[in-house]
Amino acid sequence: MIVILKENPDEKQLNNLTTWLKNQGISLHTSKGLHQTILGLVGDTSKIDIDLIKQMEIVEDVKRVQEPFKNANRKFHPLDTVIHVGNAVIGGGSMTVIAGPCSVESEEQIITVARSVKKSGATLLRGGAFKPRTSPYAFQGLRGDGIKLLLEAKKETGLPIVTEIMDLSQLDLFDEVDVIQVGARNMQNFELLKQLGRTRKPILLKRGLANTYQELLMSAEYIMASGNEQVILCERGIRTFETYTRNTLDISAIPALKTLSHLPIIIDPSHAAGIARFVAPLSMAAVAAGADGLIIEVHNDPPHALCDGLQSLTMEDFDHLMKKIHVLKEACDSCK
Amino acid sequence: MIVILKENPDEKQLNNLTTWLKNQGISLHTSKGLHQTILGLVGDTSKIDIDLIKQMEIVEDVKRVQEPFKNANRKFHPLDTVIHVGNAVIGGGSMTVIAGPCSVESEEQIITVARSVKKSGATLLRGGAFKPRTSPYAFQGLRGDGIKLLLEAKKETGLPIVTEIMDLSQLDLFDEVDVIQVGARNMQNFELLKQLGRTRKPILLKRGLANTYQELLMSAEYIMASGNEQVILCERGIRTFETYTRNTLDISAIPALKTLSHLPIIIDPSHAAGIARFVAPLSMAAVAAGADGLIIEVHNDPPHALCDGLQSLTMEDFDHLMKKIHVLKEACDSCK
Amino acid sequence: MIVILKENPDEKQLNNLTTWLKNQGISLHTSKGLHQTILGLVGDTSKIDIDLIKQMEIVEDVKRVQEPFKNANRKFHPLDTVIHVGNAVIGGGSMTVIAGPCSVESEEQIITVARSVKKSGATLLRGGAFKPRTSPYAFQGLRGDGIKLLLEAKKETGLPIVTEIMDLSQLDLFDEVDVIQVGARNMQNFELLKQLGRTRKPILLKRGLANTYQELLMSAEYIMASGNEQVILCERGIRTFETYTRNTLDISAIPALKTLSHLPIIIDPSHAAGIARFVAPLSMAAVAAGADGLIIEVHNDPPHALCDGLQSLTMEDFDHLMKKIHVLKEACDSCK
Amino acid sequence: MIVILKENPDEKQLNNLTTWLKNQGISLHTSKGLHQTILGLVGDTSKIDIDLIKQMEIVEDVKRVQEPFKNANRKFHPLDTVIHVGNAVIGGGSMTVIAGPCSVESEEQIITVARSVKKSGATLLRGGAFKPRTSPYAFQGLRGDGIKLLLEAKKETGLPIVTEIMDLSQLDLFDEVDVIQVGARNMQNFELLKQLGRTRKPILLKRGLANTYQELLMSAEYIMASGNEQVILCERGIRTFETYTRNTLDISAIPALKTLSHLPIIIDPSHAAGIARFVAPLSMAAVAAGADGLIIEVHNDPPHALCDGLQSLTMEDFDHLMKKIHVLKEACDSCK
Repeated sequence: MIVILKENPDEKQLNNLTTWLKNQGISLHTSKGLHQTILGLVGDTSKIDIDLIKQMEIVEDVKRVQEPFKNANRKFHPLDTVIHVGNAVIGGGSMTVIAGPCSVESEEQIITVARSVKKSGATLLRGGAFKPRTSPYAFQGLRGDGIKLLLEAKKETGLPIVTEIMDLSQLDLFDEVDVIQVGARNMQNFELLKQLGRTRKPILLKRGLANTYQELLMSAEYIMASGNEQVILCERGIRTFETYTRNTLDISAIPALKTLSHLPIIIDPSHAAGIARFVAPLSMAAVAAGADGLIIEVHNDPPHALCDGLQSLTMEDFDHLMKKIHVLKEACDSCK
Repeated sequence: MIVILKENPDEKQLNNLTTWLKNQGISLHTSKGLHQTILGLVGDTSKIDIDLIKQMEIVEDVKRVQEPFKNANRKFHPLDTVIHVGNAVIGGGSMTVIAGPCSVESEEQIITVARSVKKSGATLLRGGAFKPRTSPYAFQGLRGDGIKLLLEAKKETGLPIVTEIMDLSQLDLFDEVDVIQVGARNMQNFELLKQLGRTRKPILLKRGLANTYQELLMSAEYIMASGNEQVILCERGIRTFETYTRNTLDISAIPALKTLSHLPIIIDPSHAAGIARFVAPLSMAAVAAGADGLIIEVHNDPPHALCDGLQSLTMEDFDHLMKKIHVLKEACDSCK
Repeated sequence: MIVILKENPDEKQLNNLTTWLKNQGISLHTSKGLHQTILGLVGDTSKIDIDLIKQMEIVEDVKRVQEPFKNANRKFHPLDTVIHVGNAVIGGGSMTVIAGPCSVESEEQIITVARSVKKSGATLLRGGAFKPRTSPYAFQGLRGDGIKLLLEAKKETGLPIVTEIMDLSQLDLFDEVDVIQVGARNMQNFELLKQLGRTRKPILLKRGLANTYQELLMSAEYIMASGNEQVILCERGIRTFETYTRNTLDISAIPALKTLSHLPIIIDPSHAAGIARFVAPLSMAAVAAGADGLIIEVHNDPPHALCDGLQSLTMEDFDHLMKKIHVLKEACDSCK
Repeated sequence: MIVILKENPDEKQLNNLTTWLKNQGISLHTSKGLHQTILGLVGDTSKIDIDLIKQMEIVEDVKRVQEPFKNANRKFHPLDTVIHVGNAVIGGGSMTVIAGPCSVESEEQIITVARSVKKSGATLLRGGAFKPRTSPYAFQGLRGDGIKLLLEAKKETGLPIVTEIMDLSQLDLFDEVDVIQVGARNMQNFELLKQLGRTRKPILLKRGLANTYQELLMSAEYIMASGNEQVILCERGIRTFETYTRNTLDISAIPALKTLSHLPIIIDPSHAAGIARFVAPLSMAAVAAGADGLIIEVHNDPPHALCDGLQSLTMEDFDHLMKKIHVLKEACDSCK
């Protein structure tokens, strides 16, 4: 961390600042210029509140040199985190595909889709029980009953299940859920993150619509700081000025997050595109760029889906896509 | 709502669509072109799920003509909503100033600030007890104890209090709070909004960092649809590419939200600017543009504030600003 | 196009509007609701100025159903445009790689790089002569002399050359240039676009930093409307809130632009990433998503490049990447 | 400027870097930590190319402490720049209003509007001759003839004229134009800026749709570095996710640019809002926030304007607004 002081800083205040920093185990190096003095802070600055320093009267600006996240930081954990759920392996060079409908609608629907995606090669089942919808008048999900139906499908197929939590009060219902998803709109619901950090389940953490890599990793840090190291990062498209696609898939998130962090990163091409026929090219792009997995919406009858049918693949299209992903992954692995 | 059909739509599917719409009380007008057929939907379309129609095979596109919010819509409630809290009146042409520290830190601090801002003309006291912070290592607020201190300050000064809720589980602690604030990061925490709709307290709803007016009003609609009509909209700056200021105050939100909705709109210049010396010009701008109120951070000792000291006014600066606001408001009222 | 009228529109004004539209060959279908009347406009509406209609007193809103671009629209030109330059073929399922340094610096540099990238499989040579730089104090390119050096390299290697024009006044210097590039900051320099529409050279048109697909295609339309059909679209990253990468590559632009338009689309991973080690994963993603080509920065000595060395590949890295691209392209073609 | 070195930097390369910097008159202060060495650069770093340093092998990151603009920087020119055009005074605490139609359409129109806005208190006349339009099929302005009509209006009323240049090739036609406007889309047309820096006319420089304050000031720096100190900055709304208004007026640009620079700053509420009835509240906000002036679209017959009629005020509305601005400005001046 670097602290840039104003011209002619008050000696007493400067003394207060340097003493306070030294008490926190930071050593200091001073560069004095004609108009500016710069303090170089050396040591573990991740727990120093940058805002506290910025607001001091003698300080002009503060700049971070190190990232403010620690548990999620690859610098301190060079090896990839690998998460095991049922037969699925997430991270470390594998390609895991999570598939299923946007919303759980009925026992028949979820079991039909679960069997089909399993046959095509998916190793986890997704399905929405609690649905965050912009309008209070839109379908809000089957809620607790949806989770029961997912568990039925798990019993039938053996696929571990992934589903979204929207509020802490729902946590008891997630006892038998294998992976808990935190949606984009909840990425900075810090009370929820803290509590999920106290569970021992893998958390699929979706990046918010207008959030940066660092903010995503700080949210992962909330979970990890509470003791849960099993965080799966998920890029699902960000908001940009382009409205032709529902969101804009930030494909660079793959190499970038892999550089910054040791956590696995999966891609959600369905929400990113919002258009079913773009799901295949975006999935292919994600595999080629080195993603650890994909989470794809598949429905037995997209035109009659209760939500997001627009972006759901048919079971046939998904099967075809899985074959292409297999070919592509092999080609990529052959020329690393 | 307008539905644009694909060329040569399947007759049976078209029949299904039109029957379904008519059953919901919608009447239809058809325009047939050479390449396109357009259905005009007439009636109350606010409760029709636009996505359900979009995903039908025969549909090319759907466009809304009416807004999807109803309770918050000025078209159906032409008169301004006016909210009374203690002696404060929010909405309907008045100018209400809410002031107080970013965080409640101690009894002495909150009472000192409360007395001072009351003397300067503020009619509500703000203060953060639960603090949403990007880093798990930053100060998270005094939480329940913070609310107790706010209630002390209320007892001392008579000022009603405004403070932020971060999670449903905290709701019991808000029994004696006068106005409950929903922060920008929780604007689309739909479970929270629904529950707040069941209280009978005014809700101060902050616009999310990357959300549109319509999304803000849909969140207000969540609260109102659950039975609570007392929603105060708050513009607190949006995220843009400009990073010199903490956020970018969208001043047009004032006339725009007043056109779209009957709800009062207040401005938070402190979070918008993030820099204390910009709070005065932004406050002046808000008054001149017709805001119903301001929410301003004031601290007895900004350089030692535990958070956001950078953007807090001193009590003296706030007093000076209140005098300017008074002159300005009078000038604006004189030339309407 | 759909025109939504205000309640009780003035009869005479409505008559004026409908007569004016009919005179332009548009036929009209009217849907009358209780509160709203909707006009459906059928015919070629691409040349109707939407703003002119919007501002009429009796009009509440106007919505486009068809795209406002025509020459660039796949609906009217279903077959892919294929552009031939030297031995390179751009569009129609091929994969063309354009490579070379950010800036032309010396005869030795450009010839060394040209020979090397040719050997690795590039079929066009890029190199900046006129350089748009944010600061007036930064290196502005060798300008006219840079173009001469590019022509030397072309003579040596046979590679056709691509270089950027910054202003109309430079056009004479581009006589022997094979493909003229329009930079992101000039995407809406309409006078330049019109003039380039009068040349008979392929134009590489880069998407602006904050522009939509439709705006990009309208800029292509400017060139095409002036008579030049040879436009190559280029996605080079857009500005988002993420600053870790220089820009954010919008990978969905590939399937989206291929749906909307028949023009070839190439990807610039170097400017998108701004970081050399991300160029390979982004290139792989672009190939997998179906791009028609890549434009990649390669330098013989990146640490001493006069600009953008940060994002340039070494000649060795580029050679290695070309081998991977070859494997990937073959795998993709095998499973279409 | 601060240079952060990688761990264990190569001694020879480090020596090269420090020698090179010292040769440019920079003195260096070194802070050595366990894992990091930081160089503090002291002296005039505005002309040092930050990218050149960033790409060196031994460098991890470079951070600017000082702004990269110099001529436009208030630090080096503490006093406000004041620009005189005819009877108008722009900057230094005055409030100048520039008014006129979006496009010049006819002699009668421009003279009618000019007389009216002069009577209401405007001191400069605006009017578009060259019009940047997204579609090649939209009205492109009267071009050279438009400038002739503006000069007629100037002769009639004595009002100096402001009009936009779109390309260098048009410069000869601007001989008698008083203030040359550079549009938002040309803010980074560097060749144009350089050439305008060689004229001796005031330049009204509009901020680009997605550009930062620093980029705007760097574009001003291009003009000033070529010798023309008379630059007027103009905020005209930026692109955000909100589409209800045409653009989003960044009202904070007023105090921010006044802090960073000594150049005058004026506001264009017409383009920012895109809706006529929002022009008055945004103008009031701009005055209250301390703008040096306004540029407002006024038309004698907005519903029949050839472009942007939607956002133009009638002459009566403008007259009414000027009266309110006068009252407001007086109130603001009275309580500074």
